[in-house]
Amino acid sequence: MKIIPVILAGGQGTRFWPVSRRKLPKQFLSISDDGKSLIRSTADRALKVASNGLLVVTTDPLRGLVSEHVPEAKVIVEPEPKNTAASIGLAAAYFKNLDDIMLVLPSDHVVENDDVFTALLKEAASLANTQPLLVTFGIKPTSPNTGYGYIRRGGAINGFDNAYFVRRFFEKPNLERAEDYVRSGDYLWNSGMFAWSARSILAAIEDELPSLHEGLIKIREAIDTPKEASVITQVFSEIENISIDFGVLEHVKNTAVIQASDFGWNDVGAWDSWAEYFEVDKAGNKIEGDAVTVESSGCIIKSKGRHVAVLGVKDLVVIETDDATLVCPRDRVQDVKKVVEVLNQKKREDLL
Amino acid sequence: MKIIPVILAGGQGTRFWPVSRRKLPKQFLSISDDGKSLIRSTADRALKVASNGLLVVTTDPLRGLVSEHVPEAKVIVEPEPKNTAASIGLAAAYFKNLDDIMLVLPSDHVVENDDVFTALLKEAASLANTQPLLVTFGIKPTSPNTGYGYIRRGGAINGFDNAYFVRRFFEKPNLERAEDYVRSGDYLWNSGMFAWSARSILAAIEDELPSLHEGLIKIREAIDTPKEASVITQVFSEIENISIDFGVLEHVKNTAVIQASDFGWNDVGAWDSWAEYFEVDKAGNKIEGDAVTVESSGCIIKSKGRHVAVLGVKDLVVIETDDATLVCPRDRVQDVKKVVEVLNQKKREDLL
Repeated sequence: MKIIPVILAGGQGTRFWPVSRRKLPKQFLSISDDGKSLIRSTADRALKVASNGLLVVTTDPLRGLVSEHVPEAKVIVEPEPKNTAASIGLAAAYFKNLDDIMLVLPSDHVVENDDVFTALLKEAASLANTQPLLVTFGIKPTSPNTGYGYIRRGGAINGFDNAYFVRRFFEKPNLERAEDYVRSGDYLWNSGMFAWSARSILAAIEDELPSLHEGLIKIREAIDTPKEASVITQVFSEIENISIDFGVLEHVKNTAVIQASDFGWNDVGAWDSWAEYFEVDKAGNKIEGDAVTVESSGCIIKSKGRHVAVLGVKDLVVIETDDATLVCPRDRVQDVKKVVEVLNQKKREDLL
Repeated sequence: MKIIPVILAGGQGTRFWPVSRRKLPKQFLSISDDGKSLIRSTADRALKVASNGLLVVTTDPLRGLVSEHVPEAKVIVEPEPKNTAASIGLAAAYFKNLDDIMLVLPSDHVVENDDVFTALLKEAASLANTQPLLVTFGIKPTSPNTGYGYIRRGGAINGFDNAYFVRRFFEKPNLERAEDYVRSGDYLWNSGMFAWSARSILAAIEDELPSLHEGLIKIREAIDTPKEASVITQVFSEIENISIDFGVLEHVKNTAVIQASDFGWNDVGAWDSWAEYFEVDKAGNKIEGDAVTVESSGCIIKSKGRHVAVLGVKDLVVIETDDATLVCPRDRVQDVKKVVEVLNQKKREDLL
């Protein structure tokens, strides 16, 4: 079995404005004390299970940053962002041996316990190598989080410690439903990490997204020819913008899930997740940097170089950087991208 | 009649943190387009009615700033802040002729129509010169503001256009009562500006705050002697900390009020008043500087050199300066001084 990690690094991280910027998206930032960027930490974990190098799929403007943070990677450049089905399909097209196992990893997640994590990665790869299954990673939920899709697990797969068949995928639920899911014990967070052979995922794409599959065949034929870049550009201009979950996994039958519970996973999806790593005061305010809180609770405050004072506020997010400050309620952190959209409309290149 | 304006400039402006600082309190800042500081504008208005110079009462740390902003003033230094009864009494002690009219003006108010204002100042001075009355300025209320004390006017005083006897002073009301006051038409905002002869106010202090009066007599005897500073220090260390309103005006009978309505007065008491001079967007956000608001209304935003973005918030105040940012709800602007108290406890001299 040969394992080739594929790191998806084309994201813009707009929900992390004003820290995440077009020229330095979230995956190139550091959360941890060791100062390593999220993508570098991801690469380090991936290299522990990689048989022989790794791939990073990204966009042209981020190519330089990827090479800087993960110099050992082969970089595959998408001419335009077309969501995860296209990114994963493109990576698969580059696999010389279609029986090699592709380990798909987002570049911007946090994992605290690398050893537990890599053991599970190996189990997933081994399962995908033994059976023609599309293997997802399902995280045992610790709260009724409404920011994740859920996976309902089915029967345990014999011969593996943590593997189950999948009964169904569920989109992001409302709070009531999320509470039901957590109570049931059969539902897992869909982490966006996957293991499968290039052959298996291409076959699934052929079934569910045939026009993408046609494009990928054209790309595969053009690789290492002078037409390579122009074919990719042509194909990407025509294909659908759809995620691997919506486009493929929800429809196919041959899916499995590795149930994971204790590797300290965080998808760092928005400021509330990022703030898990801040200091917490008595009133439940999470603070990174220099701040005072007066009669305030449940706030998330990140400051850099300047002092932040909040008075009489509850569940508010204040993020301060060298050139911009964001203020929004905690329950609106998913909408921070709207600020970026407005700045985009206003052509505020200096702030994007 | 000789008119001597007395400008009270000892305030710390803590409700305007983080813009107002110990070393540069609010009265030395500019709100208007002309770039003039509040105290300079006050002095310019005062000089239009002054017979011959003016006095500024301040504290030792602000003495240099006062001389810089109002070089023509005689500066009287208080050894420690002991509220307005002490400041006004101290200024009165310096009056050579006790029949001269003292015009008491806070240093940090805004007046938009100088001509209307100075005409009313002259009327007040003339009234105080004709009768041994303590003359206040009452502003016709434009809203049921709960941040001001109110004056209930009595009968009109013959021979003057805008002068009334006072029926009663009222402390800051709750909203319901404030609405009653505004509806009645007989209630005026207590502006904290006054006209009286030095003799009249000293007599009133003698009746209501006899120990302050004793101290002022000692000071008056020590003026222009080597003991001047030490006597003032001694007296100030012993006297009560009380405002002229609570200590004197609410108790004496010989009070009058000049009713004023159209000189565009603003006491700039807190961020909501200051923001009267900001641009207003469609959602009622008042903004000075570079900011975007997304799904937000009723906010007050002041930024300097950096961009501020607010998302999904209502009636929030965000004030940003070079080294600090304040966030609080609009209805807590009076409590901004609490932030300063906390910074004081934390000995954050850099931010005070």
